[in-house]
Order: sequence, then C-alpha cells, then structure tokens
Amino acid sequence: MNAQLHTTPSHDYKVADISLADWGRKEIDIAEHEMPGLMAIRRKYAPQAPLKGVRVTGSLHMTIQTAVLIETLKDLGADVRWASCNIFSTQDHAAAAIAASGTPVFAWKGETLEEYWDCTLAALSFPDGKGGFLGPQLVVDDGGDVTLLIHKGYALEQGDDSWVNSPSASHEEQVIKALLKRTLKERPGFWTKVVADWKGVSEETTTGVHRLYQLAEAGKLLVPAINVNDSVTKSKFDNLYGCRESLADGLKRAMDVMLAGKVAVVCGYGDVGKGSAHSLRAYGCRVIVTEIDPICALQAAMEGFEVTTVEDTLGIADIYVTATGNKDIITLEHMQAMKDQAIVCNIGHFDNEIQVDRLKASGAVCTNIKPQVDKYTFPDGHAIFLLAEGRLVNLGCATGHPSFVMSNSFSNQTLAQIDLWANRDRYQPKVYLLPKKLDEEVARLHLEKIGVKLTQLTPAQADYLGVPVDGPFKPEHYRY
Amino acid sequence: MNAQLHTTPSHDYKVADISLADWGRKEIDIAEHEMPGLMAIRRKYAPQAPLKGVRVTGSLHMTIQTAVLIETLKDLGADVRWASCNIFSTQDHAAAAIAASGTPVFAWKGETLEEYWDCTLAALSFPDGKGGFLGPQLVVDDGGDVTLLIHKGYALEQGDDSWVNSPSASHEEQVIKALLKRTLKERPGFWTKVVADWKGVSEETTTGVHRLYQLAEAGKLLVPAINVNDSVTKSKFDNLYGCRESLADGLKRAMDVMLAGKVAVVCGYGDVGKGSAHSLRAYGCRVIVTEIDPICALQAAMEGFEVTTVEDTLGIADIYVTATGNKDIITLEHMQAMKDQAIVCNIGHFDNEIQVDRLKASGAVCTNIKPQVDKYTFPDGHAIFLLAEGRLVNLGCATGHPSFVMSNSFSNQTLAQIDLWANRDRYQPKVYLLPKKLDEEVARLHLEKIGVKLTQLTPAQADYLGVPVDGPFKPEHYRY
Amino acid sequence: MNAQLHTTPSHDYKVADISLADWGRKEIDIAEHEMPGLMAIRRKYAPQAPLKGVRVTGSLHMTIQTAVLIETLKDLGADVRWASCNIFSTQDHAAAAIAASGTPVFAWKGETLEEYWDCTLAALSFPDGKGGFLGPQLVVDDGGDVTLLIHKGYALEQGDDSWVNSPSASHEEQVIKALLKRTLKERPGFWTKVVADWKGVSEETTTGVHRLYQLAEAGKLLVPAINVNDSVTKSKFDNLYGCRESLADGLKRAMDVMLAGKVAVVCGYGDVGKGSAHSLRAYGCRVIVTEIDPICALQAAMEGFEVTTVEDTLGIADIYVTATGNKDIITLEHMQAMKDQAIVCNIGHFDNEIQVDRLKASGAVCTNIKPQVDKYTFPDGHAIFLLAEGRLVNLGCATGHPSFVMSNSFSNQTLAQIDLWANRDRYQPKVYLLPKKLDEEVARLHLEKIGVKLTQLTPAQADYLGVPVDGPFKPEHYRY
Amino acid sequence: MNAQLHTTPSHDYKVADISLADWGRKEIDIAEHEMPGLMAIRRKYAPQAPLKGVRVTGSLHMTIQTAVLIETLKDLGADVRWASCNIFSTQDHAAAAIAASGTPVFAWKGETLEEYWDCTLAALSFPDGKGGFLGPQLVVDDGGDVTLLIHKGYALEQGDDSWVNSPSASHEEQVIKALLKRTLKERPGFWTKVVADWKGVSEETTTGVHRLYQLAEAGKLLVPAINVNDSVTKSKFDNLYGCRESLADGLKRAMDVMLAGKVAVVCGYGDVGKGSAHSLRAYGCRVIVTEIDPICALQAAMEGFEVTTVEDTLGIADIYVTATGNKDIITLEHMQAMKDQAIVCNIGHFDNEIQVDRLKASGAVCTNIKPQVDKYTFPDGHAIFLLAEGRLVNLGCATGHPSFVMSNSFSNQTLAQIDLWANRDRYQPKVYLLPKKLDEEVARLHLEKIGVKLTQLTPAQADYLGVPVDGPFKPEHYRY
Repeated sequence: MNAQLHTTPSHDYKVADISLADWGRKEIDIAEHEMPGLMAIRRKYAPQAPLKGVRVTGSLHMTIQTAVLIETLKDLGADVRWASCNIFSTQDHAAAAIAASGTPVFAWKGETLEEYWDCTLAALSFPDGKGGFLGPQLVVDDGGDVTLLIHKGYALEQGDDSWVNSPSASHEEQVIKALLKRTLKERPGFWTKVVADWKGVSEETTTGVHRLYQLAEAGKLLVPAINVNDSVTKSKFDNLYGCRESLADGLKRAMDVMLAGKVAVVCGYGDVGKGSAHSLRAYGCRVIVTEIDPICALQAAMEGFEVTTVEDTLGIADIYVTATGNKDIITLEHMQAMKDQAIVCNIGHFDNEIQVDRLKASGAVCTNIKPQVDKYTFPDGHAIFLLAEGRLVNLGCATGHPSFVMSNSFSNQTLAQIDLWANRDRYQPKVYLLPKKLDEEVARLHLEKIGVKLTQLTPAQADYLGVPVDGPFKPEHYRY
Repeated sequence: MNAQLHTTPSHDYKVADISLADWGRKEIDIAEHEMPGLMAIRRKYAPQAPLKGVRVTGSLHMTIQTAVLIETLKDLGADVRWASCNIFSTQDHAAAAIAASGTPVFAWKGETLEEYWDCTLAALSFPDGKGGFLGPQLVVDDGGDVTLLIHKGYALEQGDDSWVNSPSASHEEQVIKALLKRTLKERPGFWTKVVADWKGVSEETTTGVHRLYQLAEAGKLLVPAINVNDSVTKSKFDNLYGCRESLADGLKRAMDVMLAGKVAVVCGYGDVGKGSAHSLRAYGCRVIVTEIDPICALQAAMEGFEVTTVEDTLGIADIYVTATGNKDIITLEHMQAMKDQAIVCNIGHFDNEIQVDRLKASGAVCTNIKPQVDKYTFPDGHAIFLLAEGRLVNLGCATGHPSFVMSNSFSNQTLAQIDLWANRDRYQPKVYLLPKKLDEEVARLHLEKIGVKLTQLTPAQADYLGVPVDGPFKPEHYRY
Repeated sequence: MNAQLHTTPSHDYKVADISLADWGRKEIDIAEHEMPGLMAIRRKYAPQAPLKGVRVTGSLHMTIQTAVLIETLKDLGADVRWASCNIFSTQDHAAAAIAASGTPVFAWKGETLEEYWDCTLAALSFPDGKGGFLGPQLVVDDGGDVTLLIHKGYALEQGDDSWVNSPSASHEEQVIKALLKRTLKERPGFWTKVVADWKGVSEETTTGVHRLYQLAEAGKLLVPAINVNDSVTKSKFDNLYGCRESLADGLKRAMDVMLAGKVAVVCGYGDVGKGSAHSLRAYGCRVIVTEIDPICALQAAMEGFEVTTVEDTLGIADIYVTATGNKDIITLEHMQAMKDQAIVCNIGHFDNEIQVDRLKASGAVCTNIKPQVDKYTFPDGHAIFLLAEGRLVNLGCATGHPSFVMSNSFSNQTLAQIDLWANRDRYQPKVYLLPKKLDEEVARLHLEKIGVKLTQLTPAQADYLGVPVDGPFKPEHYRY
Repeated sequence: MNAQLHTTPSHDYKVADISLADWGRKEIDIAEHEMPGLMAIRRKYAPQAPLKGVRVTGSLHMTIQTAVLIETLKDLGADVRWASCNIFSTQDHAAAAIAASGTPVFAWKGETLEEYWDCTLAALSFPDGKGGFLGPQLVVDDGGDVTLLIHKGYALEQGDDSWVNSPSASHEEQVIKALLKRTLKERPGFWTKVVADWKGVSEETTTGVHRLYQLAEAGKLLVPAINVNDSVTKSKFDNLYGCRESLADGLKRAMDVMLAGKVAVVCGYGDVGKGSAHSLRAYGCRVIVTEIDPICALQAAMEGFEVTTVEDTLGIADIYVTATGNKDIITLEHMQAMKDQAIVCNIGHFDNEIQVDRLKASGAVCTNIKPQVDKYTFPDGHAIFLLAEGRLVNLGCATGHPSFVMSNSFSNQTLAQIDLWANRDRYQPKVYLLPKKLDEEVARLHLEKIGVKLTQLTPAQADYLGVPVDGPFKPEHYRY
C-alpha cells in the first residue's frame, strides 16, 4: 500500500490516491440526491451550527454515503476527523474527495491491521496547535473500535495493565495491545486527557451496541452512549433493506455467479439475515436458514425457508452467508466438507463469524482470483471461495448499502450527535435510545423523495386512539 | 335465530344446533394435530392441575381453535364458561362440540347485539349452587368486552352512573347500558362481588391491550392484566401470518372474486396490514397502502407498495381492506365515490373502521347476496359490496386464522392464565408482558411439528454473546 | 341424491334444488361484471345471432361462470343443453338458475358415476318433437367426455364392439360401456345420426386436447376440433393464474389448514403446477416439485424450488398436490408412507392421478369429515386426508376458478363455436388452434376492466418490427 | 484506445491488454464449473471432432462465458475467429485469455463504431496462407451483424449498390457502407467467395432471428439458419432468468442506487421484460410496465403490475428500462419531462430503443461520471443519467448474464453448429428450430449441477400420455 500518512497542516490525511477526488465528488453529488434526511437536517440545523467547534471523531466505513454524513456534521459546525471501521470497506474516491475538501481522513481499501489501528489513532488525534494532540468531544462509532480503544487506553493509564499483558486471542488483539503500549510511551497521559473531554458516543451497529450494554452493565462505561442501531429507522431499514440490496451486489461483483437454482445457506435470521434470505430467494436460490433462537427460527419457517443446521447442508449448498454477530459459525471443518466451489462470505459483523484464521493455517492452498476473492484448495482437490477475507462482503466486494437507506441511519447518527452535545450536562454514562418522535421524524424526512403521501389523523381519530395528531403513534414495545 | 338459552344444570349452553357436535369434534381432533403448543402444555402441566377449580370466563371467537384452548384450560383444572367476542365469528359446529362436552358456551354465528351481550353476561355467570351467580376468577379476553363490562358494572354499583346515562355514540353502547341497568336491578351487588374474586385478565388483541393501557394510565384498572398481544409469538405471528392466510380466505368464500389484476387498498400497515398487503400482492393484486405513521409508511414503500390516501384511490380501486384499529377509515363519502362493484371489508378490529351505520342510513339499497355479503346500491346506480357488515372478514366470511398460528397465541394465553393464578399474590393492577423466556418457549413448542432443527449455541459462543446457552437470546427492545 | 330427471317440455332439467335459482341469479349478475370478454362478445355478436338455432351440447363444470357462458351462447342464438364434466364440480345454485331460465341442464354436486353419464346423455339428447332425439350440431367439451361418448357409440353402431366388450380398467369404464350397450338397444342408430349432424367441437383442457390429437393422428377424429386450451389466453391464464387462486381456496375450505411452514409437494410443473407452486410458496410453504420433463424441472429450479421425487418426500411433506395430467402419480404405497395427517389432493385432471381405487380397497378406514373431505386411517394408526375423492380439489372443495380468468377461457370457447359454425364447410376433421389475432382480441377485451392502458405502435415502429400496427404482434412459436 | 491490430501469424488478435490473460484464465476456470452443458458436450463430442477444420466466425459478446463457448468449439475441432457484437460488452480479461491461447479475437470494451466493424471484418477473414482471406464455413451470430454484413457485401458484389448508396438512417449505417465500399475496392470478389463456402448460421437473439425470418420471407436468405433464440432452454432461460440477475447488477455497478421505494418503468413485457420487472419488484421497486401487445399486457396485470404508457409515468418514475426490441421507446421528449436524476437504460437489444442520438444533439450538457455512466443536464437544470450510452446495460455496466444460464444458450449454439455442419447437405436456406429432443437434452445436462432429481415415467404412464419414456414430452406448441 503506497498510501502515506500526511500530518502537516496542509496535508492532514492518508488516502490511496488523492487524484480520485473529482470522481468522488461527482458521486457525492449524486448521493446527496438520494439522502434527503441528511440534506433536510442540513437545511434545518446548519444556521444554528449546533456542533460549532465540537471535535468529532468518526470510525465508520469511509464510503460515498459516509462522505455526505461527514459533510453534514461539518455543516453543523463540527471539527471532524475520520477513519474507516473495516480494512476493506473504504471507497478510495470517497476518501479522496473528503481529503481534498480539507477534512482529515485516514482510510483506504485494503489496509493491514497495523495500518487500520494507526488510522484509528490518527482520527482520534486532533492537533492542539502546540505539537500535541487533543481527543474528540464526540465519537461516531461503528462496531465500537474507537470506544474500545479509548476504554482500554484509559484503563492502562489508570494502572490496569492486565488486558494488554494477557495472551491474545487473535492477531488483531496483538496489534491493539502493541499500539496501546506504544502510545503509553509516546503520548503519556493521552487517553486520560481524551476521556476528560469526551462527552458521548453514538453507535451504529448491533455488535457495537451489544458491547456498550455489556460495559454499562459492568459499570465501566465512561460516557453517555446513544444506541442508534435500535432506532426503528436504522435496524429495520439499514440492516434489513440495506442487506437485501447489498448482499447480492457483493456476490455478483465478486463472483458473477448465477444465483438462480443454487442452494444458499443464511446463518442467522435477524434483520440482516432476513434481508439476505429474502434477497437470495428472489433471485431463485433455494435458501436454508440456520438459527439458535426459536422465535426467529419460527419466523423463517413461516416464510417458507427450510431451517436446519450448517452440518446438514454440507455437500449440498453452494453459497454460505453468515449474518449472526456471533463467532465460529462456519468452522474449518465445515469448509473442509463443503461442495466443490462453494462460496463463503460474511455480512454479519466481524470476520470471526468464519474461521478464517484456522482456514489460512490449515494447509489449504490460497489462490487470489482478484481483490477480495480467494480460492482455497484443500488437499483432496476440492476448493471453496472466500470473499473479502471473511469481512463484510457488501462493503469489501461491493460498495456497501445504497445511499437512501444510509440516509436513514445517518440521520439518526446526526440527531444523536446534536442531542448528545446539546444535553451533555444531562446525560449519564448509560446507553440511550433516541425518542420515538425523532425516529418518526427521520422516516418523515425520507417520504417525499419517494412520493409517499401520508394520511393525516383527524383530532377525533387521534382522540379515539389516545395519541397526538402528529405522533408519536406507537407504544415503546411496538415492533414494526 | 332459533338458538335457545338453556341454564338448567343439564343444559347450561346456548348454541345454534347441538347436532353439529360430532362434526365439530372431528374438526377439533384435526386441529389438535395442528396446535402442538397447546398439546405440549397439556402434557406438561395437566398432571399438576395448576388451574384446579379456578373459574375462568372466556370471551373469544368460538371457533374450532378456541375449542382446543378451552379444553386445554379444562385439562389444567379450570371451570370454564365461554362466549364469543364477535357476533359473526362463531363456528356453530365448534360451539356445539364444546356444549356437548359439558362446557357452558353461549355463542352462535349471527347474534344480534342484544344476544351478544346477553351471551357475555351468561359466560360471566357461574351458578353458585344457591340460585345466584359467582363471577370469574380469571378472564381470557379478546377485544376487552368482558373487561369493559365488569369495569362499567362495577363503576355503576359504586354509584358512578355518568356513563350509563350519557348519550350513546352507537347502538351497541345503548345495548350495553341497558344490560347494566337491568343487572343493577336484577342482580344487585353482582359486579362488586365479581371484582372481589377477580384475579386477572389476559388480553389477546391490539385493541383490547390499548384499552388496558388507557385504564392503567388513568389509575382505573381493577386487576392485573397480561398483554398477550405483544408477545412476539402472538403479534408477529397471529396478526401477521394469520391475516396473510385468512384475509384472502374471507374474500374468496364471500365473493369468489379473481384477485389477480385488481387494485386493492390496504388501510394501515401494522402487522395485520403487512400480512394483508403481502397476501394480496402474492395473488397478483396491485396493492396500495394508506398510513398515518411515517415509519410504517416508509416500510410499505421499501416493500414496493404505493402509499397514498384513500381519496386518491377512489374510482380506481376494486377492493378496500381496513386494518388500522382506528375508526372512520372508510367513510360514507368514500363509498359513494368508489368504483362500481368495489368490495369493502375490515380485518382490523371493530366494524367502526368502516362507516357502516352511516351507510345503512344513507338511502343506499341493501341486497343480501348470501350470509355476510351485502350489496349496497347507491341512487346513482353504482354499487359496492360490504362483507360481514364491516366486522372481521376473516372470521365473518371464513373461519378465522388457521390452527397452527392460533396455537402460538393460545399457548401464550394459557401460560398467562397459569402465571396470573400462580402469582396472584404478587401481581399488581398493571399491564404486564410475558417474559421473553416464555415467548421463546412458545416458539420452541411449535418447531418440531414443522420439521425445524435449531442450532445450539456452544458455551464459548454464548459467552461471546453474553447470553445464556438456552436463551433468552435477545434484548427487550429487539423487534424481530 | 334427491335430484330428479325431468324431461317433460316444461321441466327439461335435473338439478339438486330449483329453489336456489334466485341466489344463483344474484351471483350470475356479479359474475357478469367480472367477465368482460363474454359480455363484449354478447354486445358485438348478439345482433347477428351467429348461432341461431344451432344445437349446442356443453359438458363443462356447471358453475356460476359457466352459466354466463351458457347465456352468452343463448344470446348468440344457440339451442343449448348442458351437463357438468365432473361429479363434484357443479354449483347447485348456478344449475338451478340456469334450469329456472329454461335451459335444459343436468348437473348437481355429488353425482354417482352412473348419474354422471346419464346426465351427459341427457345433454346430448335434443327432443326432436316426435318423441325421439337429435344430437348436437356443436359441442363444448371439457376433458373430452362427450367426444369420447359419441366416438365410442358411433364405433359400436358401426359394428366395432371390441371396446365395449373388453375388460374395464376402472369402474367408470364399466359405466360407460353399460350406457352404450343400453343406448344401442333403446335408441338404435342414435349415434350414427348424431355424427351426421355434428359439425365440430371446441375443447377446453390439456387432457381433452391430448385425446383429440391422438384421435386425429390415428385418423379416427370424426369432426373438426378447436383446441381452445392452447390459446395463450387460456392455457397461460386459466391454468396458471386460475390455479394460483383456486388451489389454496380448495385447501382452505376443505381443511382450514395453516399453509405457512408446511412442506408441500407439487407433482408436475406445467402451467397448473406453476400456479400451484407459486401460490403455496406465497403462503409460506416450503414447496418441493416433482417433474419428468427436464425443461420444466430446470424452470422449477430456477424459481428456487427443490426438485426431487415423491419418494424422497415421504415422511417429510404435509401436503401433496398432483398437477400432471398423468396417472398413478401418488400411489397407495406413497400414501402408506406419508407423514401422519398429510393432505392429498389433485388439481390436474382426472382422479387417477392419485390411486384412489387402490386406497379404497386397501383396508384403510375411511372417516368422512365433511363433504369432499375424507380421512383414511391405515392399520398402523397414521392417517391421511383425501380431498374431493381425488377429483379436482378447486372445483370439488371450492368454486373453481374465479370469473375473470374464466372469461378469458370462455371467450375463446365462444369465438371457437362461432367460427366452427360459420366455417363449417371449410373445416376438416383435424385439430385447430384459434388464430393469434383472436387470441389477442380476447386479451384486449379484458384490459379495460382492470385499468390497463396499452401503448400504441407508431407506423414507423410497426414497420421496423415488420408487424401490423394493430397486431398480431408475435410469431407463432412465441411462448409468452 | 490503445488496442492494436496484430495480424502477423504469431499475433493474430486485437485486445485491450494481453497482460490480463492470467486473470481471464482464472475466471474461465471458475466459469467452466458453472457451465455444465458445454463441458458435457466437450466430453461427449470432442473425441469425434465433429467440426474438425471447420472455419467458424463468431460475433458475440466477448465475455468469460463466451470464452468457454469458443474453447468448446475448438475442442470439437473448429478453426475459430471471434469479434464482439457490441462495442461495450467485451470483458477485456476474457479477450486477453482467448488471445493468449492462440485464438484470433478482435474485441475490447469501448470500441468506436468504426473499430467495431473493422473487428467484425477481421473475424471474418481467415488467412488463406497466400496473403488473401477465406470466409467462415459456419457463423455464430448474435444480433445478426455478421449475417447482415455478408448479405450486404454479396449484394453489392452482385451489382446491387442501391443500399450502400442510399441515405443513412444512422451513423452506424454510414460506417457499414463505408466498410463495404472499401472491401469492394481492397478485396474484390471477397464476399462472393465467402458466400460460396458458407454453410450456415446459428443466431442467438430475438432481434437477429427476426431479421432472419424477414430475409427468408423475402427469399433473400443465402444459407440455412438455426434459430437458437427460440429454443426453450434459451429464450425462457437466458432472456428471462439471465436478465432477472443481470439488470440489477448493471444498475448497481453503474449507480449504486437504492432500488427499494423507487418507481421503475419497464418498457416491454416479453421474456426480457418479465425478468426485469420481477427483479426490480423483488428489490422493492414499484414497477410499472408498458406494452403494445394485449396478451403480454394482461400477463403483467395478472402479476400485479400497473400497465400504462411512458407518458403517464413522466415526473413520477425514477428508473426506466427498455426491453422491447423496438425503436424510439424512450424519446427525447420523454427524457426532457422526466423527474430530476431519473436513470435511463436499455436491456432490450439496440441502443435505438432510447433516442440517444437526439439526446446528444439536444443541447443537454453531458457529464461523464465514470465509464458507461453519463449525466445529461437539460437547460432547465434537471438531469437524467444514461447508462452504457443506451446499449445493453447488463453487458455495458456489469458482466452480462452469469455463466450457468449462458451454458444453456451456448449448448444450443454448439449443438446447432454441429448439426448445421453434419447435415449441411440436407439443410435448405430457411430458418430452423432445434428439435425438442435436443432442447430437453440441453436442460438435462444442467440438472445434476444444481441437484435436481428427475422423476422417470413408467412405460404404462408413457403409454397413457402417448409419449416416449425418455421424451420428447410436449407438443410443439407447448409454451412452458
């Protein structure tokens, strides 16, 4: 990777190829038309500049859509630094356009793990004008890597070195620990200073939210957190409809494979799995679902999917998609027993849904077909294809979710950032959901673009239902 | 209606035709195979008889499926009396079979409103052996009519006669008030005695639950209530998958109409509306959705449905289905402007979703085609068809939801009844949801029947997720 | 069956209950609105009376839709006599309305085989005013029973008694032979006279058409035949979209069974099978297809259906639907090995798709649940449900295809009848298809009703395509 | 374009970048696994070398799948030269791999029209070893360009110069005429010699076939032609299921646009339109269909699509897809009236389905976003996106149909080539369909790969149906 870290005031970014900026800008222009929620928020809030001067660090796939989010935050007054949250998910022309516009961004497609965490650190390091660094006041997180790094760094500086000195479960853990040891030496007291200024985080994903709840339950969460993932207009749109569009996109760009007639296994039938399974069926796949949760399993059955275990599909299925948020879903032994030329990919969260490390160490011969497409041939001669090295296939092999659905998610992110800052004195170090009224507002901002005409409650009807004429309309436990 | 009220010990029931009992029994036998949840609960709990001697009043569509619920409650030891909760929803052979087996039941298809409320009262009246009546200790409610009656009767006996003497918004309200005035005279102190013994209610529907929350918020709820409707295995199954099957069934049995090629308007895109809209689309209808809630509207749009107002569809649409739980959705003016031969029906809750009363009083000529199918011809010559007089079309024109999905709902009802009784000393007069663990259990009881094979978490995976190996698996706010 | 044969001039019909005529008439009125093709043909042709005085015998399911066909033929001037072509498919109120209007009809739901063939003979017997009978000049056939009877009767009168004296493969064959022997005695020379006047037949079904081609190839076809089944607006609409609506209707009315989550096997993936499989999947069934034809099998696979043999599904599947036009698809051995409570039905053509005769003789105990629903319990205790005794489930258990799609089929029938008569001197005893121009015309007649707006070719575009501006648009081999 | 024409014996090819050959070869290896039909044909026929030494010219999109076809023809003994049939459809790594293997190929992505026709001529020019050129003995054609060129060249040499001297309707016509005039001068007698050796052509597309039938009707067809397009395993698979997969692929790679919630107009509801419409609906588009043929229009309506004119959708629709095979479907006036940011593309056949020439000359400002994606901004400020300059969007913006479905089409092509050669003495200069037996064989060759298990007819069943036990199973007019 020939990307170079520039931290002089004039070139505070690290991207693959700054000459892609023009192309990136053209696509950002197109995306703005598809992101009516963010554009409406700009129109409504920019005049007041509610994030004026606030230092915001983002760790979120550096795509065209994210570029529109970044520029929305800047329009609201924020001082933004950005990194990607996945080594393969950056769109280099998007990163170039953001860099060219003067926003510090540290992201390119195909980072090493060492580079990835260095980028994360760079996004956290706001020059203080005196040769040192300040941390962010707000964090936009996706998967919780920034939150993790700050918490671990802070713990280390507080004298708790148990984690950094414990045996590492993965190569990535080693990398993080090495980074923390280095910052401890190079920037003593840095993490403590970061925590002092940090007012809150809004988190995008199921996985990251899960980590936050665990921290909160353990009493270790350092700042208020807004769970953006569980806004209806996020989890029921981005996770479901986003994946319904982007899974097949990733498979097609990677493999150009005919989906009709294939047997596809979708592991997990949450929102991501639902979107994935329905997309594959619509293409003419025979879809088999695996589940641990009896309710989700029953839902899959009611939709006509066969529900069984991965083991029962070996030798039969052509395509495997993990969508669980859990680990070790596709094991090395599974891959060894799959049909020749089976395709294996992940759209859940981390690459550990598939035992990639064990596969690499297994003696299977790896042939790279093209970027993000590897063929592993086992000693017995049969082979499988692993996409995006087990990381998110829609981001690694295609361009992630399309703009319109991300406009929903990112409108929630932006409203969360505004609220975290405006009410920074009132929030506690807990995990919050956005109020339903805002959730409905995000939806409302997207209706006109697609020609939806809402019906208006009469006062008599609102009274009959016992809800305000303009909402919110549903009880908190409503599931949509 | 030649049904006759029998209250001698030997004939404590009122059904349309007791000779249908054999046929009903054959269909109950079939239904038992389709209701694995209830049958599993019988096997597990009957030996302990957890409802031994408990007086249970049920007000719930007297169908074949309900017969299996009734006999499950009896197997658990309960002393059961039953009425239907809808004047058209009784399956007469089901009622006959239950009556023939010795359970007091008061229900037939096509009751008048007066008969309906008399039946409800009869189901509430357990002979005390001394010529008087005891009330139920537990209530199984659907739509909240029993709960309403007891609360209103109790208020009246406590001296609050404001409601019974207020002007009535509908004929049905008049009937209820007359009944209460009569019982005040004939059975003085009855409602107060009922309340004294009453330990709780489990409620089946969105509408009934909504009423309960309103009562609770107003501090007027007299007993603990379990909101069965919002168990995932109820609202996301019965409401969604049940309606997906039973709406078309009602339309077909009523009208034998070709659905392909028709324009159908579904008012409301909650769970019931979702099931309805998807069913009609699968038949080849062009489906248009109306919504007040921007989130649900956006969901409909993401599924490819046109979303607009009823007004915009007049003259174009062939079929109207209300699924809102609200009132005045299809007004008289709408019906006057519809395409000739348009079909209008309701699968939401009450018949006031359609302005039936205004239609009847409008001067349109009503021709009865067959039971539950009326043609209204307007002075200008064009006509519409109204199904089931605006009441639930799936129950009025077909046989309601199929057994398998009702087994989910009724398993929740049964577990709620058991829990209300077992913990009657701990519950407060509030509205409760069943714990997620029980919700998952209900799903689990239905998997084997349809051949679903669950995947089992390993301890390492459970630890990674931070959930128990056997669940519950999801946070409370999870939406499925 | 209390239906009685009336052949005095004043009561020349035999139906179940003439008092159902009013109800039948109301439903015929509704159906007319749903059958725009037939109504347009009436408007266009009735003034010329192209079938004035022509004796037409129809053998086609005596439903509400057929009533509209019959009255269309009468409007065109024909002298019509009618029988059903299936012992269970008559709608008694439709037959009553037709009888009441003065058209001789011989049909009721639940005929014995003897009654069925007597009805067919009655429909063939036009009183000659001198105590004898004339045969039809034109025949509308469905399944080819009338055509068969005339051909067999004629052969017998010509001295070929080989068939009537051969061993019978089924009870039905015995019945036919007995009838022929009887007419030989009672009406000597009748069949020869029938053939002399007979000018042609139009045939509705795949099965009947297949028989006609076999007769033609063998040089034994006595009259010109128009293959209506293979008009696009018949086979691709009635067979496909009709079954997509009526299969589930039959299953629901018979069994009230939840389809979601069930495993359903559809035997045959022709047009009928395609409609059936797609309908069941839309309900949430997991559908498995069986096929003998590799092309149809590949189509099923491309649509995501598992394709395997019946044997591989035994013990797994809940529902079996035959749609092949072939025999012995579901054997006794299959039924003996099915899952307990499996449902077996046929939507293909004859009841011999399922080995009903062998089942009845097998020692399984038959319990009738309600009309058309029989439970067969095998000695080992497990049971299956057989619907409509193996005859067409949509006609036996529901009301057949809806009006709109039948309007397409019957418009083809009517145009065929008109053409057969108008050009009776030019037709040869061969099997003909209707010209594509008429096929397109039939479609065109149905568009306005459902709001379809066609695009019109410009002359330049028509020239570019090399087709007339108003069609026909496609080459003969085009498959739609 | 830096591609260079090499015609020395050692480098008889012209491709974009020969260094892409390795990548191309890896993808060819993958494709072979997905093209079981072609591989089976290789195994079965290669030993006899039925095309030994036969000169074959192909004009067909130079993709990875076509590479497998080319190598199959070579395995059968043929001497092959190839060009693409579309200026944008070449996959450069596929062309490179074919060139590297020694097969003369003349194709790259993004040819000018002049280059395109030069490539076609190069593919027709087999060096005769004496500095001159021989023509092909067989032609594989897609769209009929090779057939057109030979017919026009031959006519010119026969003295008929009316066409080459007539005014040209398009720039492309000018290019062809210039080429013919040049060859007349440079290679006198060439076309006459080509025709003398030419034994037949197999044609792939609806459009090309249509041209052939027109030639045959006019008595001008010079050689036997096999209509491969209308093999069931071609038109009902490639056109339908291929487009169902590749349309969205093209849209996604070009625009990364969210399809859910958009209004999409599909012009034409033939096989290509059917696949397109169903794909878009499955993504959550609201799909509107336009049609000229009442039968296809009625089919669209039965599937729940709104059917209206392009005019009625202007200002409402977001995406336009032409799939007609006709011209001037989307006019300049349409584009001027479309919604801002509407996307316009073609998956039918030629770019004249959209008035691209008029658009370019209209004064709208063209901004190239990336290859194959152009934004045209009209004077009033609103803009549209035109994909692949109006040529096939699935080939221009993605990689065309996936391998598996092309294996069906190309198996038909290969069997046609074998048959044309083997029976070259018996064929007449007419248009032929492949016999149904071969059609079924092609399907059969693809079943095992996707796990389909066929049912086998018993002799008794075959006898009952009157078909051979092993097929063919259906009459010629059967539509599948």
